[in-house]
Amino acid sequence: MDIRIKKVLQDQPVGQRVAVAGWVRTRRDTGGFSFIEINDGSCLANLQVIADKGLENYQQDIKNLATGSSVVVDGELRKSPAKGQAVELHATKIDIVGGADSETYPLQKKRHSFEFLREINHLRPRTNALGAVSRVRSRLGYAVHNFFQQRGFIQVHTPIITTSDCEGAGEMFQVSTGRERSGEDHFFGRSAGLTVSGQLQAEVYALAMGDVYTFGPTFRAENSNTSRHLAEFWMLEPEMAFCDLDGNRKIAEELLKYLLADVLENCAEDMALFDKFIEKGLIGKLQDVIAKDFIHISYTEAVERLEKAGDKFEYAVRWGADLQSEHERYLSEKLFRCPVAVTDYPASIKPFYMRLNDDGKTVAAMDILVPGIGEIIGGSQREDRLEVLQSRMIETGIDPAEYDWYLDLRRYGSVPHAGFGLGFERLVQFVTGMANIREVIPFPRTPGSAPC
Amino acid sequence: MDIRIKKVLQDQPVGQRVAVAGWVRTRRDTGGFSFIEINDGSCLANLQVIADKGLENYQQDIKNLATGSSVVVDGELRKSPAKGQAVELHATKIDIVGGADSETYPLQKKRHSFEFLREINHLRPRTNALGAVSRVRSRLGYAVHNFFQQRGFIQVHTPIITTSDCEGAGEMFQVSTGRERSGEDHFFGRSAGLTVSGQLQAEVYALAMGDVYTFGPTFRAENSNTSRHLAEFWMLEPEMAFCDLDGNRKIAEELLKYLLADVLENCAEDMALFDKFIEKGLIGKLQDVIAKDFIHISYTEAVERLEKAGDKFEYAVRWGADLQSEHERYLSEKLFRCPVAVTDYPASIKPFYMRLNDDGKTVAAMDILVPGIGEIIGGSQREDRLEVLQSRMIETGIDPAEYDWYLDLRRYGSVPHAGFGLGFERLVQFVTGMANIREVIPFPRTPGSAPC
Repeated sequence: MDIRIKKVLQDQPVGQRVAVAGWVRTRRDTGGFSFIEINDGSCLANLQVIADKGLENYQQDIKNLATGSSVVVDGELRKSPAKGQAVELHATKIDIVGGADSETYPLQKKRHSFEFLREINHLRPRTNALGAVSRVRSRLGYAVHNFFQQRGFIQVHTPIITTSDCEGAGEMFQVSTGRERSGEDHFFGRSAGLTVSGQLQAEVYALAMGDVYTFGPTFRAENSNTSRHLAEFWMLEPEMAFCDLDGNRKIAEELLKYLLADVLENCAEDMALFDKFIEKGLIGKLQDVIAKDFIHISYTEAVERLEKAGDKFEYAVRWGADLQSEHERYLSEKLFRCPVAVTDYPASIKPFYMRLNDDGKTVAAMDILVPGIGEIIGGSQREDRLEVLQSRMIETGIDPAEYDWYLDLRRYGSVPHAGFGLGFERLVQFVTGMANIREVIPFPRTPGSAPC
Repeated sequence: MDIRIKKVLQDQPVGQRVAVAGWVRTRRDTGGFSFIEINDGSCLANLQVIADKGLENYQQDIKNLATGSSVVVDGELRKSPAKGQAVELHATKIDIVGGADSETYPLQKKRHSFEFLREINHLRPRTNALGAVSRVRSRLGYAVHNFFQQRGFIQVHTPIITTSDCEGAGEMFQVSTGRERSGEDHFFGRSAGLTVSGQLQAEVYALAMGDVYTFGPTFRAENSNTSRHLAEFWMLEPEMAFCDLDGNRKIAEELLKYLLADVLENCAEDMALFDKFIEKGLIGKLQDVIAKDFIHISYTEAVERLEKAGDKFEYAVRWGADLQSEHERYLSEKLFRCPVAVTDYPASIKPFYMRLNDDGKTVAAMDILVPGIGEIIGGSQREDRLEVLQSRMIETGIDPAEYDWYLDLRRYGSVPHAGFGLGFERLVQFVTGMANIREVIPFPRTPGSAPC
């Protein structure tokens, strides 16, 4: 029975027979034997295999084993006399399962740029950095579930195909069968698109189950070819009944700290790689975020601080205008040097569903800004008053008749409720230090690119 | 600080002050006080509140509290003298948060048909049955993650928008920006659609990380208006490197048993509801599945058994034809009365990616059939030999050049690997006994219907 290399390196069953299965990362020959580094994806570290020339397929096969080949190795685990690893596997048998022609296999032993690796998207998880991203992303996703399930939240699978455009931004992909043009009706009876947010539907469930979350893919048909944009990305959106903006902010802070602590504990080896090669000081930065209280200021105060800053910004700071990325980063990176929750934005720049404050000018919105990323979380207390919500819809050009189901949530048993959206890729970027969002999702979808 | 009703009923802090927040299910008045049943979605059971006429808003508000209204109740928890509940909350204060006009609120105190509830999709999670389904679905989703994460699997978020049609069935929804008709190019540079399966992309990660799973929405643009079909549904797809059909089958069986045991333990109250009102004997059926080994027969043997059965089938049984639902149900419901894994189907009726057996006629496919549902899992060992895979592609009319990335997985470090797909809604149906698939997904998408 094969065991995973992660377990071999953890348990170190020295003196025992061990069989592992994986892929060759490198091979180095000396006079009488070969060192072969095997990786099986379970962890960053390779297992060093010693293949003696006495093995029956040594001359013919093992001595020619190429990077990328797959093997099953049987042997005895011993303490390693060399530096760099505690144990090594002395092979008694090496089965070569699948070859990898070194003339054509693109992943030879050298550093490849992330740009190049994007072109071989289907092979890049076989590299150290992208493999580490995969493990960290998987762990973060699991930690999201652990956090909410431990707190009694219900996960709701909100729909991907929808006829509601929550943000009203007109950037929805359209969905069709392709048969509409030949005169068939719309499959869903009306025009439908890919969701930009599960929030409105999550509210349905919050108003029935109390605390819920939705975690899944969302979409933007936005023609932005930048290191920050994807056409398809994952979003986490909790929604809590009987919760106001303060409660919302506290859960967001608790969540972020939980996720960072979880991944530092459970992905220590991968995090050390990022700290060393991708963003120096990364681990310290995350520990800092965990240790300190987040700053909380109002939008109005943020504008005042930015005006006083004296820094030259590309975009002018002005009450009533949205904060630009440069402003957000100034607040979290220069002024406070920690995550900052900015709340109570002007109503005029926020969507209809955010709760109007008593001043009649601002809404109970919240953005959480983190150093290096800017906005990582955006949320609000929702408008729970039927008449106010209807007025806000009309003001922003949305037909209330189209959202009668959503208004019903205010007609029948309305309660104060709040929620937020966490861009999952931005979180993975923040945690790994990866500069381009295309490196933190397995199969990035961007303008002109969906190769498989 | 409010606490959830589930916790009140579990901990029963008798004699203590308790505040809960939720929705009124029913109100019953006697001479001097009212009984109010409150539900907050955290569990099936309501908390009984005793509201004395001495409360200041009793005459004006509490005595008129309608079903569906939202309230915050402060009071003292006491032992209940009556049957039906262990504790009750003696209110010292009841805040009415949101009303619900009993003239128009559709969920009055009576049984509603599931057909009717589908028409008020945004309110139906407020009913006992649909609330219970929501909790069970959420728990099952979490149990999926627990199962795989405990076993070292990496979760991979495979893409929703794709240019690969894994099943080649031509039932993909098309994705566009809606601007193509006005002469703009395709957003992704070529025609793209909604995934029918994450398998091919999961294979990319299995061949790098070892054991992986993808769990997300998948789509079929199939014009089927039945109780078994959805246009959007969730699928769980594990994929394991260095794994053959036997290993695949064992993991599938272990997974199903784990999920059933988990939900019986963690959703006991909800499961009792289903057992009582939806499918009598449900819990016993699930316990049976957990206790017994699954039956394993080959497709060829299944055909022989069906031919011998003497039962009249609508569709004739014939080696080379796919098993119909009636055949699958005969096997699991009548012949074996337990889950059955059928393996090694004719190559001619299975997709190109399944591994050709040595007989040259069958492939290493596997379907797991369960009583009442039929096929709940479908999987295979994948074709890992480059030349055989290329031939199979050409045979089935697929252009190998379109799948060069997929073929690379066989060119470089190919290994035996296998995986399967579990239809998550079918699982929830099996676990809850719900007859129509539209009741087990929060927002069903079907021909002519995507109301929000």
